[in-house]
Amino acid sequence: MTKDFFAGLEPVRFEGTETSNPLAFRHYNPDEIVLGKRMEDHLRFAVAYWHSLAYEGGDPFGGPTFLRPWQAGGDMAHAGAKADAAFEMFRLLGQPYFCFHDADVRPEGASLAESVSNLERITDIFAAKMEETGTKLLWGTANMFSARRWMAGASTNPDPEVFAYAATTVKAAMDATHRLGGENYVLWGGREGYETLLNTDLGQELDHMGAFLSKVVEYKHKIGFKGTILVEPKPQEPSKHQYDFDAATCIGFLRKYGLEKEVKLNLEQGHAILAGHSFEHELAVAAAEGMLGSIDMNRNDYQSGWDTDQFPNNVPEVALAYYVILRAGGLGSGGTNFDARIRRQSLDPEDLIASHVGGMDVCARGLKAAAAMLEDGGLEAALADRYAGWQAPEAQAMLSQPLEEIAAAALARGSDPQPKSGRQEILENWVNRFV
Amino acid sequence: MTKDFFAGLEPVRFEGTETSNPLAFRHYNPDEIVLGKRMEDHLRFAVAYWHSLAYEGGDPFGGPTFLRPWQAGGDMAHAGAKADAAFEMFRLLGQPYFCFHDADVRPEGASLAESVSNLERITDIFAAKMEETGTKLLWGTANMFSARRWMAGASTNPDPEVFAYAATTVKAAMDATHRLGGENYVLWGGREGYETLLNTDLGQELDHMGAFLSKVVEYKHKIGFKGTILVEPKPQEPSKHQYDFDAATCIGFLRKYGLEKEVKLNLEQGHAILAGHSFEHELAVAAAEGMLGSIDMNRNDYQSGWDTDQFPNNVPEVALAYYVILRAGGLGSGGTNFDARIRRQSLDPEDLIASHVGGMDVCARGLKAAAAMLEDGGLEAALADRYAGWQAPEAQAMLSQPLEEIAAAALARGSDPQPKSGRQEILENWVNRFV
Amino acid sequence: MTKDFFAGLEPVRFEGTETSNPLAFRHYNPDEIVLGKRMEDHLRFAVAYWHSLAYEGGDPFGGPTFLRPWQAGGDMAHAGAKADAAFEMFRLLGQPYFCFHDADVRPEGASLAESVSNLERITDIFAAKMEETGTKLLWGTANMFSARRWMAGASTNPDPEVFAYAATTVKAAMDATHRLGGENYVLWGGREGYETLLNTDLGQELDHMGAFLSKVVEYKHKIGFKGTILVEPKPQEPSKHQYDFDAATCIGFLRKYGLEKEVKLNLEQGHAILAGHSFEHELAVAAAEGMLGSIDMNRNDYQSGWDTDQFPNNVPEVALAYYVILRAGGLGSGGTNFDARIRRQSLDPEDLIASHVGGMDVCARGLKAAAAMLEDGGLEAALADRYAGWQAPEAQAMLSQPLEEIAAAALARGSDPQPKSGRQEILENWVNRFV
Amino acid sequence: MTKDFFAGLEPVRFEGTETSNPLAFRHYNPDEIVLGKRMEDHLRFAVAYWHSLAYEGGDPFGGPTFLRPWQAGGDMAHAGAKADAAFEMFRLLGQPYFCFHDADVRPEGASLAESVSNLERITDIFAAKMEETGTKLLWGTANMFSARRWMAGASTNPDPEVFAYAATTVKAAMDATHRLGGENYVLWGGREGYETLLNTDLGQELDHMGAFLSKVVEYKHKIGFKGTILVEPKPQEPSKHQYDFDAATCIGFLRKYGLEKEVKLNLEQGHAILAGHSFEHELAVAAAEGMLGSIDMNRNDYQSGWDTDQFPNNVPEVALAYYVILRAGGLGSGGTNFDARIRRQSLDPEDLIASHVGGMDVCARGLKAAAAMLEDGGLEAALADRYAGWQAPEAQAMLSQPLEEIAAAALARGSDPQPKSGRQEILENWVNRFV
Ligand SMILES: [Co+2]
Ligand SMILES: [Co+2]
Ligand SMILES: [Co+2]
Ligand SMILES: [Co+2]
Ligand SMILES: [Co+2]
Ligand SMILES: [Co+2]
Ligand SMILES: [Co+2]
Ligand SMILES: [Co+2]
Repeated sequence: MTKDFFAGLEPVRFEGTETSNPLAFRHYNPDEIVLGKRMEDHLRFAVAYWHSLAYEGGDPFGGPTFLRPWQAGGDMAHAGAKADAAFEMFRLLGQPYFCFHDADVRPEGASLAESVSNLERITDIFAAKMEETGTKLLWGTANMFSARRWMAGASTNPDPEVFAYAATTVKAAMDATHRLGGENYVLWGGREGYETLLNTDLGQELDHMGAFLSKVVEYKHKIGFKGTILVEPKPQEPSKHQYDFDAATCIGFLRKYGLEKEVKLNLEQGHAILAGHSFEHELAVAAAEGMLGSIDMNRNDYQSGWDTDQFPNNVPEVALAYYVILRAGGLGSGGTNFDARIRRQSLDPEDLIASHVGGMDVCARGLKAAAAMLEDGGLEAALADRYAGWQAPEAQAMLSQPLEEIAAAALARGSDPQPKSGRQEILENWVNRFV
Repeated sequence: MTKDFFAGLEPVRFEGTETSNPLAFRHYNPDEIVLGKRMEDHLRFAVAYWHSLAYEGGDPFGGPTFLRPWQAGGDMAHAGAKADAAFEMFRLLGQPYFCFHDADVRPEGASLAESVSNLERITDIFAAKMEETGTKLLWGTANMFSARRWMAGASTNPDPEVFAYAATTVKAAMDATHRLGGENYVLWGGREGYETLLNTDLGQELDHMGAFLSKVVEYKHKIGFKGTILVEPKPQEPSKHQYDFDAATCIGFLRKYGLEKEVKLNLEQGHAILAGHSFEHELAVAAAEGMLGSIDMNRNDYQSGWDTDQFPNNVPEVALAYYVILRAGGLGSGGTNFDARIRRQSLDPEDLIASHVGGMDVCARGLKAAAAMLEDGGLEAALADRYAGWQAPEAQAMLSQPLEEIAAAALARGSDPQPKSGRQEILENWVNRFV
Repeated sequence: MTKDFFAGLEPVRFEGTETSNPLAFRHYNPDEIVLGKRMEDHLRFAVAYWHSLAYEGGDPFGGPTFLRPWQAGGDMAHAGAKADAAFEMFRLLGQPYFCFHDADVRPEGASLAESVSNLERITDIFAAKMEETGTKLLWGTANMFSARRWMAGASTNPDPEVFAYAATTVKAAMDATHRLGGENYVLWGGREGYETLLNTDLGQELDHMGAFLSKVVEYKHKIGFKGTILVEPKPQEPSKHQYDFDAATCIGFLRKYGLEKEVKLNLEQGHAILAGHSFEHELAVAAAEGMLGSIDMNRNDYQSGWDTDQFPNNVPEVALAYYVILRAGGLGSGGTNFDARIRRQSLDPEDLIASHVGGMDVCARGLKAAAAMLEDGGLEAALADRYAGWQAPEAQAMLSQPLEEIAAAALARGSDPQPKSGRQEILENWVNRFV
Repeated sequence: MTKDFFAGLEPVRFEGTETSNPLAFRHYNPDEIVLGKRMEDHLRFAVAYWHSLAYEGGDPFGGPTFLRPWQAGGDMAHAGAKADAAFEMFRLLGQPYFCFHDADVRPEGASLAESVSNLERITDIFAAKMEETGTKLLWGTANMFSARRWMAGASTNPDPEVFAYAATTVKAAMDATHRLGGENYVLWGGREGYETLLNTDLGQELDHMGAFLSKVVEYKHKIGFKGTILVEPKPQEPSKHQYDFDAATCIGFLRKYGLEKEVKLNLEQGHAILAGHSFEHELAVAAAEGMLGSIDMNRNDYQSGWDTDQFPNNVPEVALAYYVILRAGGLGSGGTNFDARIRRQSLDPEDLIASHVGGMDVCARGLKAAAAMLEDGGLEAALADRYAGWQAPEAQAMLSQPLEEIAAAALARGSDPQPKSGRQEILENWVNRFV
């Protein structure tokens, strides 16, 4: 039923900046070498199954607009048609990875067992298609927020039966991810949070979430899954408050439950903005802790107070993100996922392809700019210079002296530190040489 | 020079709700027993020296408006006059505590040594006045954000000499606090943060901040200070990003540096709002960790994007805050500080007194409402009922079972959890019976 | 099919503040006289059909949770069952009014004509029920945002055929409203706005919206509809930008198109918040222009960046709103509509009733507090006193003098104005005596 | 006393993109022809006296950091030294214009008369320097927000004496602007707004503001000032609410008081953001009304809730702004003012120059990108295509038909409009080809 959906569209090729073809890459050239590595291997792009295949175009004030043929029913046949469309789309885009939730790819069963079985059946289909096309799985995850049963949370639900249902759901999604060679497994705490503190035992819910995540890590090792377990911060929406508020909150949570060596972060630009941070802040926080795992490179609208999940389109912002990533050693087993929805008015197959092309090009430009900044070295040098005083032995020694000794010495030498310029605008101008 | 400032004003008395005297307490009755304890001993009100005595009425677009006589000069004579006004104000209000920064109470010296010495001199004056009046010190702190030397941070400064100057400054402020019998010592990270990541080594700065705080804790024990060390979260302002963003971030920081048993939080309503949280959220997070130390009970304007530090005036909001506090066992050695500025157009001595009176009354109403909610027990019962399923032995057992066992059992029993109402509006209505 | 939905629930009665019955009014006593008028006649409560009957519990991250029997199908039988449930709910609550969109009450037809006809049929049913029960229609409106055809706006659509479809839709909804004796007709510009300026001719769209509204006004007069035409401001959501951003924007729009004598505003607290205003600000702006028409008394969560449409629960805030309303002469032909959704976890019939009961009680308390403030007169007196200088003849004369004359006189008298206290906290305390 | 301040700095030259000189223009080449006009004549850059010369580096939590020699005193000698520094700075930057408030350039006098006289004296000094250097005045304005007398507003003050003082102040600033050949005169309503509605008669204050602005327009004509009168929207800060909230509000205000033909808008990016709009939105609103006067091209930090007034540094955003401006016919008598403060840690003279250089370069890039988009024509063509249906005679006719006729015709033809893609991402990608 999807046969003709992308009819007339050809695989997207790199044509360089002079092309006026809206369905060509102008900057993303997979084999181009950047800092000694292929661009594709730096960026590790992934298409998100949920937005690009499953999202129907609804919003809180309106219903579906896309009317994709595979969205006309919720059975295995439609799931198969959706998979056909997905892999055709991957073929056109040529990106190396995709990501999915269980609920994106399989119909809900009449029972938990049937839902698990449906996922296994679709996993077989995916395995064959992946083998055939070479498209790989960046990460799998479980949707534990859409169905009615999750309305009060999954692992944090007041009802222990939901905890058990969640365990089964995650196990199945991990099994599928493992089977498909997924390079990571992600947990986004969709409704792990609260609507009102009046009906919430916050401390117990956090303990249950910690226990659940520990089980996930334990299971990963048991089955020999070599991928990274990632949690994805988001401060709110759908919940009024989500426990995985931002990077710092997640890191504190992981440390509390002894998981800081086992779990890393999947960071999304839109969620950073919702939490009151820049994206590069969230990346820098994770990088400073060695917990930068993967990214969802979709932006929010700065004037909208909810998660708009738009494709990235601002090169200077994207360049700063990749600058932090490159300084931290790159994305490792993570990648650049587009957790991005085309707008509900973007009805055409061409929109679906073009939006990804534009996003990939913006990331490619950002990556190249970040690499150029690193190669230039000016920003690094300025940073080193600003903190140079701490290289002095007496400065380092001070870090292990007691307060009163530091004070006595400072008084003795008549301490009178003189401020130096922070040179913010000069550094910002520096960045603008490369973006 | 302050002799006549409060002329004509009498000590504020409790007159009950029927009074129309704007300078009487209508709800705050210090000796009234609430949940078995005097109201004064629950609330432990403190006046903030900086806002009520030192603030001159300026804002980013305008200069001083208050023109207090003691603000006409920066020498010891004016500092003494300020202290006279302060203790006269405390006498009028009758609140048990006050709080101060070093820079609020002593003139800056020509050298670090002179600044320290000025603080010691003013400490002597305070000691005598406290002895005489019975007013106590809730907490002391050091202002490490106003002077030009702090422009790039204190313990996180790129210049180690500033770190040393900060150590000396905090030691002096801790000494003064200890001498005056302060019940806590607070660190608010005014410029511990950054303006731009381009000139910031975030990881190193956090390590230095951790080292500094460890020294503070060590020094506390060395001098036998029995008070609690508190840090005060705030997400931004003056810095673009402040490291002590919110309660969860601070708790993660404390745990990372092994300080979670030594340091608690001083939480401010206005800062909660700036961080995208309700105040009761921040309180609940701290309470769940046993780290609720003290509160700054001043609100922000919900339509303003900066810290307006206004006196509290919304009883239902305040009631929810005290409800969390009472459930957590009360404020302990902490208290209810008003880190609150009267508006820069509120020029008169009467405004200064009335604003505190209004704030104290709002807190008293909030406390009484919170106590009534606790005594009623309806909210607690509803909460227990919602989580009752977790009391079952098999539910508790599940917390220590591995994922695959939980899954197997869930599949075996055909798990199909049925949602129950969260009853949010009913609970909100319940609260409204008491506020 | 709705027979048993509200089974076991009795009509809600006023029982006073001492009752612990969660389904009784504690403050809303319809016949109680406030400022010489029955409370019911001041408040003029309306239930919103869309939220209370049609909303299924979905949000952007999840599907229906309520599963009301009448929501199981989209035909006339289900529409009839929905109407049965609605009027049973109105009977239980006893509120005098309801409000509806065409799409809430009738199934979408296979054609435009059938949709119109469906609305006419349901209008007959409503007419009979209204006659029988005495429940009245506060306002009708047309939903021109949910169906796919409206995705790019209604009267502002780039496609003139949508404009025509919108005209037909509004005519039909106005006819239904007129037939049912509606006291107002509302236009909320759901998708009259834009997602991106890149595809938008803002000037033309505003002109079309102006032309459309002019036709609505013309049609009202033609059919002899005596109700008030209202527009409802909202700054965003679903659109990135909505043309009816806030009260001031709407008033400017109405004046530009010569409609300022014909159209008033329906103001919603949640929309005020989204636009960066307090609710009382929006009310005061409309009142100052004589354009305060009606209110949607539902709040937003201050920490959520979207329209949460919750029942009001903060008495002090509600009191300030009614204070502005009472000062402006009351709601006239408008009323207090609850454009409020119960939370998607509030599954039970009891939640649906209790949420309205709580909202009505909060409004009743707010109204009584506002009336008490007016009767006290202290705030009015303070206001008059602050502006008293403008009563002087020379002050009034200045308003008609040219700049240079005012300047010459000011220089001649050595003008040196001295600020007086704005007394903000004292006034806020004053309010707290009544709430 | 300013002799050596900029010592060692040379006039900034255009060196092209290959230069690594941080004090050279890489993109701003005044004589380069863009769309048939010199770049300088498009952009019409202005330096803001207040931020670049008068701002001392303070913020709400800290005092001066810059310690410029001319800031050491408030007499005429220091004002002269400040002017020397200003014109030396203008010489280095080579921008054609500057802007000032009265209070930036002259010391406050001991009386109103002396303040006026001081302004006249400094005007003479400026006149000579402008004659000598060729630097021109883009606009003048009066600071009616910093001094204590303005704390409750200027033309909206409850005290009529302040209204008179404001009239005198504006007259003097207009006289100075006229004398110096200023091309515009700006009114920014710093404290024309309120802190609390409890002490505010909003309707009267708006009427007084309208009367005042009418006098300003009248005076302009009387003295033969040919420049444009501009008002500058800002939603809040310093006031909780400012009457000139945003473009739409200002336009509505102007229309109400019959000033829509006489007054245009000075729009600032930072203020757009604070009001919940994109900058291009504000520009488009003003352009659609023919009221786009001039721009303040300084950005806000998206994560800070107050007006950070930073130099622009995001080329894609700036390009969209100039795209709207070019489509509207350019800036006319307006210009590109930097109402931008360097950060308080940017202490060095080089920072002051480099920040302007960076801002000018970003604007030059934005302008060139906007021009390229216009020359390409693709966006225009897509826009025309989207609205093409409205070109049909029957579509245009519909705009003047009554509602019931449109409806009858729509029903007759079985209206069933089919949505077309809005192509948002494709258009966004299009933009990215040019930025
Ligand atoms: Co997202
Ligand atoms: Co994501
Ligand atoms: Co604060
Ligand atoms: Co505080
Ligand atoms: Co709403
Ligand atoms: Co509404
Ligand atoms: Co500004
Ligand atoms: Co400006």
